[in-house]
Amino acid sequence: MTDLVRADGRTADQLRPVTIERGWSTQAEGSALISFGNTKVLCTASFTNGVPRWLTGKGKGWVTAEYAMLPRATNSRNDRESVKGRVGGRTHEISRLIGRALRAVVDTKALGENTIVIDCDVLQADGGTRTAAITGAYVALADAIEWGRAKKFIGQKSQVLFDSVAAVSVGIVDGEPLLDLPYVEDSRAETDMNLVVTGRGLFVEVQGTAEGAPFDKRELDALLELGIAGCAELRDLQTATLAGE
Amino acid sequence: MTDLVRADGRTADQLRPVTIERGWSTQAEGSALISFGNTKVLCTASFTNGVPRWLTGKGKGWVTAEYAMLPRATNSRNDRESVKGRVGGRTHEISRLIGRALRAVVDTKALGENTIVIDCDVLQADGGTRTAAITGAYVALADAIEWGRAKKFIGQKSQVLFDSVAAVSVGIVDGEPLLDLPYVEDSRAETDMNLVVTGRGLFVEVQGTAEGAPFDKRELDALLELGIAGCAELRDLQTATLAGE
Amino acid sequence: MTDLVRADGRTADQLRPVTIERGWSTQAEGSALISFGNTKVLCTASFTNGVPRWLTGKGKGWVTAEYAMLPRATNSRNDRESVKGRVGGRTHEISRLIGRALRAVVDTKALGENTIVIDCDVLQADGGTRTAAITGAYVALADAIEWGRAKKFIGQKSQVLFDSVAAVSVGIVDGEPLLDLPYVEDSRAETDMNLVVTGRGLFVEVQGTAEGAPFDKRELDALLELGIAGCAELRDLQTATLAGE
Amino acid sequence: MTDLVRADGRTADQLRPVTIERGWSTQAEGSALISFGNTKVLCTASFTNGVPRWLTGKGKGWVTAEYAMLPRATNSRNDRESVKGRVGGRTHEISRLIGRALRAVVDTKALGENTIVIDCDVLQADGGTRTAAITGAYVALADAIEWGRAKKFIGQKSQVLFDSVAAVSVGIVDGEPLLDLPYVEDSRAETDMNLVVTGRGLFVEVQGTAEGAPFDKRELDALLELGIAGCAELRDLQTATLAGE
Amino acid sequence: MTDLVRADGRTADQLRPVTIERGWSTQAEGSALISFGNTKVLCTASFTNGVPRWLTGKGKGWVTAEYAMLPRATNSRNDRESVKGRVGGRTHEISRLIGRALRAVVDTKALGENTIVIDCDVLQADGGTRTAAITGAYVALADAIEWGRAKKFIGQKSQVLFDSVAAVSVGIVDGEPLLDLPYVEDSRAETDMNLVVTGRGLFVEVQGTAEGAPFDKRELDALLELGIAGCAELRDLQTATLAGE
Amino acid sequence: MTDLVRADGRTADQLRPVTIERGWSTQAEGSALISFGNTKVLCTASFTNGVPRWLTGKGKGWVTAEYAMLPRATNSRNDRESVKGRVGGRTHEISRLIGRALRAVVDTKALGENTIVIDCDVLQADGGTRTAAITGAYVALADAIEWGRAKKFIGQKSQVLFDSVAAVSVGIVDGEPLLDLPYVEDSRAETDMNLVVTGRGLFVEVQGTAEGAPFDKRELDALLELGIAGCAELRDLQTATLAGE
Repeated sequence: MTDLVRADGRTADQLRPVTIERGWSTQAEGSALISFGNTKVLCTASFTNGVPRWLTGKGKGWVTAEYAMLPRATNSRNDRESVKGRVGGRTHEISRLIGRALRAVVDTKALGENTIVIDCDVLQADGGTRTAAITGAYVALADAIEWGRAKKFIGQKSQVLFDSVAAVSVGIVDGEPLLDLPYVEDSRAETDMNLVVTGRGLFVEVQGTAEGAPFDKRELDALLELGIAGCAELRDLQTATLAGE
Repeated sequence: MTDLVRADGRTADQLRPVTIERGWSTQAEGSALISFGNTKVLCTASFTNGVPRWLTGKGKGWVTAEYAMLPRATNSRNDRESVKGRVGGRTHEISRLIGRALRAVVDTKALGENTIVIDCDVLQADGGTRTAAITGAYVALADAIEWGRAKKFIGQKSQVLFDSVAAVSVGIVDGEPLLDLPYVEDSRAETDMNLVVTGRGLFVEVQGTAEGAPFDKRELDALLELGIAGCAELRDLQTATLAGE
Repeated sequence: MTDLVRADGRTADQLRPVTIERGWSTQAEGSALISFGNTKVLCTASFTNGVPRWLTGKGKGWVTAEYAMLPRATNSRNDRESVKGRVGGRTHEISRLIGRALRAVVDTKALGENTIVIDCDVLQADGGTRTAAITGAYVALADAIEWGRAKKFIGQKSQVLFDSVAAVSVGIVDGEPLLDLPYVEDSRAETDMNLVVTGRGLFVEVQGTAEGAPFDKRELDALLELGIAGCAELRDLQTATLAGE
Repeated sequence: MTDLVRADGRTADQLRPVTIERGWSTQAEGSALISFGNTKVLCTASFTNGVPRWLTGKGKGWVTAEYAMLPRATNSRNDRESVKGRVGGRTHEISRLIGRALRAVVDTKALGENTIVIDCDVLQADGGTRTAAITGAYVALADAIEWGRAKKFIGQKSQVLFDSVAAVSVGIVDGEPLLDLPYVEDSRAETDMNLVVTGRGLFVEVQGTAEGAPFDKRELDALLELGIAGCAELRDLQTATLAGE
Repeated sequence: MTDLVRADGRTADQLRPVTIERGWSTQAEGSALISFGNTKVLCTASFTNGVPRWLTGKGKGWVTAEYAMLPRATNSRNDRESVKGRVGGRTHEISRLIGRALRAVVDTKALGENTIVIDCDVLQADGGTRTAAITGAYVALADAIEWGRAKKFIGQKSQVLFDSVAAVSVGIVDGEPLLDLPYVEDSRAETDMNLVVTGRGLFVEVQGTAEGAPFDKRELDALLELGIAGCAELRDLQTATLAGE
Repeated sequence: MTDLVRADGRTADQLRPVTIERGWSTQAEGSALISFGNTKVLCTASFTNGVPRWLTGKGKGWVTAEYAMLPRATNSRNDRESVKGRVGGRTHEISRLIGRALRAVVDTKALGENTIVIDCDVLQADGGTRTAAITGAYVALADAIEWGRAKKFIGQKSQVLFDSVAAVSVGIVDGEPLLDLPYVEDSRAETDMNLVVTGRGLFVEVQGTAEGAPFDKRELDALLELGIAGCAELRDLQTATLAGE
């Protein structure tokens, strides 16, 4: 790690300012408006008693996620996917990623035959939207589970969440491994990686892509180290938020 | 008008608390997060130099709008229209209404060959989403026009907006004409009407529907009177917001 | 009202020649081919014993409508919505309007658990297609209800229709309020309004839009008066048609 | 041929009553409302100066067709293809058949760089809708060509149509070859065949399908003979109609 | 028949080299990779115990087919139908043809309440893809039926197939009737015909189309004769393949 | 690494039998039918002179890929995406992965303004379809580039491919890191990882997902080591295939 200073004044291993407004929505069973710098994602959790037909009668619950972006979240306007009549590949891919990340810390038996859908809508995008979405979705999910417990859909002692989960992007820009890339860095990165890490520091997802030059094992290790540290910071913020601090 | 007190403590002719956060989005050329009570709509204006092909070379600009609702804006979750692969009838109808309302106060010649698209995304819904959308969209539109002027896409002296525009719902509930209906009143209304009124007090749209019993001329007149007064209040708030107060 | 003479020789308060061919289709439970001048709409009513799943077991019936236009109904050909793969906003909006208009005069309890779908297909369009559709749909609906009664799906004494319903367009052209606008007038109208009125003279829908200049209360009142008189004439024709005259 | 009498009183080699109302639509460049018994098809021809991009600059025109059925043309209601969001296989297949049938008698060089789209909308269906459509479409096409000639888009002496074209269904029911099957016969036919034949008696399409038992050469020959005679009758009616008789 | 020699060295009445690799797929209940010259079609049969809802409880089975082409099966690449979001007219038409052809030799009562779906995917296309598909599909179907018998879903003595079925294209090129047209001949044919013929020599489908000049009875007879002989050869190859020769 | 023996007799670090049939398709500019055990993927490369509009005039080429699976590639039949009318999330995600993998070794400037589309159609699926697709696609791509060179669309000395690329799956099953998982292992894996590695041994993609328990750094390192060795073997096979051995 060099003592490089980035365009926004951060050091290489520093997160952008992160805020989580828990309970932003008054309609959903759990919600969080999370921001990673200028990236803002509204995460809402919808709790339904019962499961999809394919899961009925197995004594297990289901957690899934949908990711989407408002048309003018980005610097120039994109057509709405509803108007185009199809959900794009990138949207699908991120929705699937968020769902897998959350399910990695959920004991679906303890959840019982209940379904929780997490919607992650990007209101403003400046890089790292999927990692902010996962980090905020965990908070909304935790609150929805407590809502379900209060309503007696979930047993009082069921430990549905056996760990927490957060995510962050890392990348190599001009040869330097950096944490939490805003758009301006992300678009220039030679390698771009998203890490989903549990509160205990284990990997759920490691998704690294060489956008420019392919990368070697040493670079990979540097990125993993940055990401694990970043996710630990996010975990602490999640914990504090859920503790009402 | 009786001295009736409503469930939320308002009188029959009182608006819910209305707030407009101008410039909420840092990406769009104009934006406003407007709330009518618990109804919250994010309005963003995207300015593009140039017009759609069918309008090219006529020396006129174009203003259009798209309305949408987040899946968990409402009390129970709705499927995303992008996932269903088609935009619903209600969504289309409201998008068209917003576009017409805004164009009613725009001099498209003065706008020049520029296009402004207003996205109105309902983040939380509690009745009156289309009227909040129109009222907020006007603020985003006004700012986008000033952005275009600053960038010299619009002439310094062109008066693009020759009036302002706001909208409000009115309805008859238990025989009483009421202003600005939240969901709990709207769902019980015998007659439901949306009024779009210019700053000068002229009608742009009068859309009244008997949900229960058909209505007569006297009831119609009472609703129109309530709505005109409500729109005048909203106009004053728009003016103050744009003046930076 | 001035003594103005319109391009087609009518006075301002005169309907175009209106004809209703009841029972035009031999396949449907009720049908009417209605013409308002050159506008021709085929309305067919399909009666099904039973209701959609969401209404099952509530002891109530359902009436809905679908509006569509043949590709060459208009002066130049439009692409088919089936070929485009999506139903346009205007089509959706009018279908919803027709359904609401009909339901406003139907006692769904008296209808019992039966469904009536009214298809309104515009064979030729010259302005006022939605108002002709509503006026003709009422005749097809009335016949379908009698069919259901004859088949004993509806009780012999059930009064399903507690009123009749008709619709007409009105508008301001060159400052003059006019009744029943053909395309040539409609396309020039400053204000365009569709009125849906019951046989007893009560409003079901009032949909006025300023296409050019916004309008004031005095103009609105003039339009309402014209429309109520026009709908009363249409009601008389509906009554005569259903009486077999 | 036996002296069999059919349910509707016809002999085996007799057409249903056929009528052609030329110019039924006042909007299209050519039109015909054709009926084969209770089957009624509205054929409209839309003439456009110019050709699709893929044909530009080749000095040739284009003729194509679209077939569709109103939802309640049949005995029970079908969902609209526009609402389903896709055009069904049968619809596509018939549209393609009509287009091929018409192009078989058109000299596209003589047509010049003009496009004619024929819409065939089935208003009521009782068997033989595709054959009625082809027979009526020819009349609409012929009128659209004369319209194009009058407007000087087509040379005064260009012989665009070098033959006429008509179509009829034939089939084997209870072992008997029959001409022009209504629905009640068609649904019971062992073999069903559609023949498209030019005015000079040559085949354009021979489409025979064994719905029940496969058929042999002798049966095929009997069907072809019936169909050729039926198409000759239709040709005479087309000729008389176009001559204004 | 003249002693004409074709571009690929065949006589007018000669098939291209035909091969059938039975059991090419290890996943399906029946499969065949069939080639007619350079045309290669993978046919797989999927056996399901049970029938679609509309057929339940009638004691009958169902056989259906789906045809598709890989995007680069042809000489230049076509867009995928999944990407376009709709199945084209030609694809639908051929899928329906294959299904009808197979059902013509199946006793659905003997099949019992079982469903067999035959997928015919064109891996490489050089004319005659639909006829190769039908011919190969029959082999896959026969094996799937034997699979069902082995699994006791079909009675040991049930004769499900009461005949075999094969198909071939014929056409008139430069005035000569030819058998089994590759793309280079097919694209120049004046008349193009697909024949589906049972093992006993009866017609299931006769689909002849004049692509250029309409054809007369004498030409039709010549084509039928060629096709019947070609289908007899294909039947012999099917029989040998299924006998394990 | 233990001396574990797998269900199919392989050791933990052994690939399944891999075969590449280069030039399987005679229509495409490059093609390969690749098999990893029972997984069979047909890769075809389509070369077009010119680039998509958004890339025009930049002196660079474009390489993209589409992945799809035949409906009966798997053990039970899946509905076709063309019939469902939308491309699924998994399909999109894999198409994007293949495209990125190939572009990582292509010098788009050296390619010039040419487009190569690689279609990867899974004919039979038994785990590892995306990794087989990438490995086969590279061979098809290399041949398409040579085709373009022979046709002079690419300069004689342009080095378009500056490295090769292959891919393999690795995973942890019952606590053991394994190479190249067939379906039976993949469905039980605790962690599943796809590695895309260049001929020189650098990473292009590292996509690891905890399907069961999250994984730690030591496990990740074991998987990376296995995958790098597997990709080196595949690279040698690619090289030999392209050398015509």
